[in-house]
Amino acid sequence: MYHELPNDLKIRNSKPSDHPRIINVLKDWWGRRDLTWMLPKLFLIHFNNTSFVVEKRDELIAFLIGFLSPAKPKEGYIHFVGVHPDYRGIGIGEHLYNRFFKICIENSRDIIRACTSPVNKSSIEFHKKIGFEISKGNSEIQGIQVTLEYNKPNDPKVLFEIRI
Amino acid sequence: MYHELPNDLKIRNSKPSDHPRIINVLKDWWGRRDLTWMLPKLFLIHFNNTSFVVEKRDELIAFLIGFLSPAKPKEGYIHFVGVHPDYRGIGIGEHLYNRFFKICIENSRDIIRACTSPVNKSSIEFHKKIGFEISKGNSEIQGIQVTLEYNKPNDPKVLFEIRI
Repeated sequence: MYHELPNDLKIRNSKPSDHPRIINVLKDWWGRRDLTWMLPKLFLIHFNNTSFVVEKRDELIAFLIGFLSPAKPKEGYIHFVGVHPDYRGIGIGEHLYNRFFKICIENSRDIIRACTSPVNKSSIEFHKKIGFEISKGNSEIQGIQVTLEYNKPNDPKVLFEIRI
Repeated sequence: MYHELPNDLKIRNSKPSDHPRIINVLKDWWGRRDLTWMLPKLFLIHFNNTSFVVEKRDELIAFLIGFLSPAKPKEGYIHFVGVHPDYRGIGIGEHLYNRFFKICIENSRDIIRACTSPVNKSSIEFHKKIGFEISKGNSEIQGIQVTLEYNKPNDPKVLFEIRI
């Protein structure tokens, strides 16, 4: 099912000037976790062809930063996705993922990967709902497969994959 | 001039298992600055076709992490380069850059960008020596154009560009 966005929300490709706006909302949207390091500006410079922001007039409502893997010609990678806490549960995240999947299909890529932190239960549920499977890791946290020291030391991640 | 590597050094494309090895040397190679956040593992998963490591037998001697910009079809971006302190000044960095330039040329990309911190004087000199120009920024530090809050808040960067 392809969720349409509510009429008052507009989606467009991201651009470099979105970077400070996204950085500014991270802590509020992630329950005070500081994830600034996840999003150096280069992601807003070099991956805008596969990244999106959703706005309500001038307010940032959601974003998805993803790219088609240069080294893995069959894969797309979703790096970072956020939805304004007041706008969750109405299909915006799913719309963003489907938009990214569409680009992957157009570019003959049928494996999409993403990852999240094991503490982020709602993200894990969201990915499972969309149809992602949890990849085998090298450890387990609360019954969920995780890869320890994934992006950096002491940074366990739940890895997801889906074939589209 | 295309510096050849000394015979006992070997260059190859990077691979994901290089990630912890690179992370482990960062502090030593950068005078105790902690730049771990610059290199989430995804760079070692998705950009290996344009990234390299140099080894002497099993020891890591240098690396270059770069990619062909998906959103900017004429550009290549060099994200992160390091050379073991004992092996500086013998052309290894230049060899790595030239290797990356070669891939860019093969892919019809003639603008290469890179950036460094204004405190890293040797990096600034290195880029100028190779032929990079310093891009106009939005401020100046010790007479050098910088872009304030580039990758993240309070993170001024000297931006470089070269046409090849």
